[in-house]
Amino acid sequence: MKKERSNQGGSQNLLKRLNRAKILGLLRSHGSLSRTELASLSGLDNKTITNIVNHFTETHVVVSAGQMKSSSGRRKEHLKINTDYSYAVGIDIGASHITVTLLNLEGRPAAEKHHSYRFGLSGKIILEKLLSLTRALLDEAKLGPGRILGIGFTAPGFFDKERGIWKTAVNITGWESLPIRDLLSRHFGADVYLQDCSRSMALAEMWYGEGKNLDDFILLDLGQGIGLGIVIGGSLYEGAGLKSGEIGHLVVDPDGRMCTCGNRGCLESIASGTAIASLVQEEIGKGTRSKVVDLVNNHIDEITAADVVEAANLRDPLAVDVLGEAGRMIGKALSYAITLFNPESVIIGGQLSKAGPALLDPLLDSARRFTLPQLFGDLSIKLSGLGFLSASIGAATIVINDKIFGS
Amino acid sequence: MKKERSNQGGSQNLLKRLNRAKILGLLRSHGSLSRTELASLSGLDNKTITNIVNHFTETHVVVSAGQMKSSSGRRKEHLKINTDYSYAVGIDIGASHITVTLLNLEGRPAAEKHHSYRFGLSGKIILEKLLSLTRALLDEAKLGPGRILGIGFTAPGFFDKERGIWKTAVNITGWESLPIRDLLSRHFGADVYLQDCSRSMALAEMWYGEGKNLDDFILLDLGQGIGLGIVIGGSLYEGAGLKSGEIGHLVVDPDGRMCTCGNRGCLESIASGTAIASLVQEEIGKGTRSKVVDLVNNHIDEITAADVVEAANLRDPLAVDVLGEAGRMIGKALSYAITLFNPESVIIGGQLSKAGPALLDPLLDSARRFTLPQLFGDLSIKLSGLGFLSASIGAATIVINDKIFGS
Repeated sequence: MKKERSNQGGSQNLLKRLNRAKILGLLRSHGSLSRTELASLSGLDNKTITNIVNHFTETHVVVSAGQMKSSSGRRKEHLKINTDYSYAVGIDIGASHITVTLLNLEGRPAAEKHHSYRFGLSGKIILEKLLSLTRALLDEAKLGPGRILGIGFTAPGFFDKERGIWKTAVNITGWESLPIRDLLSRHFGADVYLQDCSRSMALAEMWYGEGKNLDDFILLDLGQGIGLGIVIGGSLYEGAGLKSGEIGHLVVDPDGRMCTCGNRGCLESIASGTAIASLVQEEIGKGTRSKVVDLVNNHIDEITAADVVEAANLRDPLAVDVLGEAGRMIGKALSYAITLFNPESVIIGGQLSKAGPALLDPLLDSARRFTLPQLFGDLSIKLSGLGFLSASIGAATIVINDKIFGS
Repeated sequence: MKKERSNQGGSQNLLKRLNRAKILGLLRSHGSLSRTELASLSGLDNKTITNIVNHFTETHVVVSAGQMKSSSGRRKEHLKINTDYSYAVGIDIGASHITVTLLNLEGRPAAEKHHSYRFGLSGKIILEKLLSLTRALLDEAKLGPGRILGIGFTAPGFFDKERGIWKTAVNITGWESLPIRDLLSRHFGADVYLQDCSRSMALAEMWYGEGKNLDDFILLDLGQGIGLGIVIGGSLYEGAGLKSGEIGHLVVDPDGRMCTCGNRGCLESIASGTAIASLVQEEIGKGTRSKVVDLVNNHIDEITAADVVEAANLRDPLAVDVLGEAGRMIGKALSYAITLFNPESVIIGGQLSKAGPALLDPLLDSARRFTLPQLFGDLSIKLSGLGFLSASIGAATIVINDKIFGS
């Protein structure tokens, strides 16, 4: 149903958020500025600047940076972000990793914890691990009460934002309808925000990465699953049921393998990290020789996509074949997203974005081949530079957006 | 590049537009209302209501409906839309039709002209025809100066909004880089607005059709070409280069027929009205028997998609086969759009939306089969009720939006 768009209060809150974000953005990029400089750089009037600065100083977001000479020679009070006063926590969980990041008010990771585990670990153990890892991070940071703004939680799958429930976490068993918001909130005494991981990565790009100067872009998340974070008009597009961007479930090969979703030939069943590892395992099981076997010391069932990438770099034919087919299929699905969205830019992130030419060359070739030429010509395709912290940074950013910019 | 999102003036203009649209929407649905009633129904304060009503009466959009008794028993001045004071013109042009509609301020077509021609007519003749048809419509309506708000022009293909140029009109020869805005503006002395036809249809649905109560929906336009109009957060999504929604150019069969775009196996090369007609022509040329031959009195080269639909209703096997394959391919491409956008609703419009079960049953079956079950379950799929005026109504709506709601 249509949300109330003509709501005056809503639009004024939006304006307030945008102006606050603008001021903090200026302080972030300039280091410190006077009120006059803030007014002239932002184009906002003095009264608005005063309101915003008062709000930020009362909430300890901004502090005085002392008196500094302005260009006119007069000394004026400068303001700066109170960087290490408070922090947002971002928790990113996947089928084989947990990452917890402490993000300061300048959007920089102040501390982080990362833990990898084998695909298939039980949801119960993953949950325990995530609680202890987050607790350890907070303990080491020695932050008193009120200095944690909140927790952003991100995972693959579907969630209910209103009720704070993670409905389905792809590839994590026992996480059906998990009341993760209340659970984390009770454990850490903080407000908790939920978001899908590909969308969190897109948020991180929008604020700190390749998406900083873009209105419309898509973030292709190549990991154990494959997802798409969509930014339209400078905002995350979540879809009517918070289910947008399920590019991993485009059926690219109707006669292909069964996917976990119940359909056949989804992109994820051919090209996700999980699929790449299991395809190589199967081929080796059938007797195909591969350098991957040596890389894992004959522990075939421990092969990961990273091992396949390593073998491809050694020109192992099986690894090159499997990554090549994955790349071609990802490129085809990406062409569909480009043709429908006409984004300014595609940012490729996630663990497999580091796979190099064995995956990326066929991916780009196939994206070019299948995309309407007029759309491909205008497009820039970039690799994310944010690394493995990306989704947790994005999740923490949701907290900052709400607590600092919100009303 | 990022547009200025934090612009205070921009947000306030947006607010003004939304409030004006709200007031006009209330008058449209209630017939007439007093200022007090407008305030209470809109939730806006008296000062805002006064400003809007003054703006609307000065511009002749709203007039007095006389004094009427209110619920308190006191007589108050009522206001109503000045329905027949001014009009917007919508011109919709395609590979085989021109439609020109005069839209009144209540969003109802007051007059229209429609002309069909054979696919392949030269762009020069189409242009002459569109000018004479529009001139005839305006002459018959006997509208004095200042009573035409402007002209909305819509066609398939790519355009340059800033320079007012139609860059490529699919299937119309000789329309490369046509300066259509200046041309129409010179001829009719009116401001001219350009938009792609599938997006115009989505706009018409948003204001007057199945999209009225929806925030996020997609309009699947099945005509001589196949396009997608995308509404996100209650606004048209045009894409970074005004090229969003090119669903007709998703490659659904990489080994398939050459498409006019240069790629192979695009949806349009199998399932557009043009493709359906030419596939049937080819099969008949190869000796396949079909009832279509009788329907066109043996003029095989004059077969249209409408003839194929008619033959399918008579259970002609060739027609049923061709429409079935078209439907399956459209359904597959639609599943991609649903899986990426997660819309609340899909509205199917365009001439071929009237093709009935021979096309729509396989279309829906295939959309269901290929869409991630969690996304398909939430979705409603509807047929457009706006008919062949849809794109021209949408185009005229752009004029009303800008002239009446704009600043």
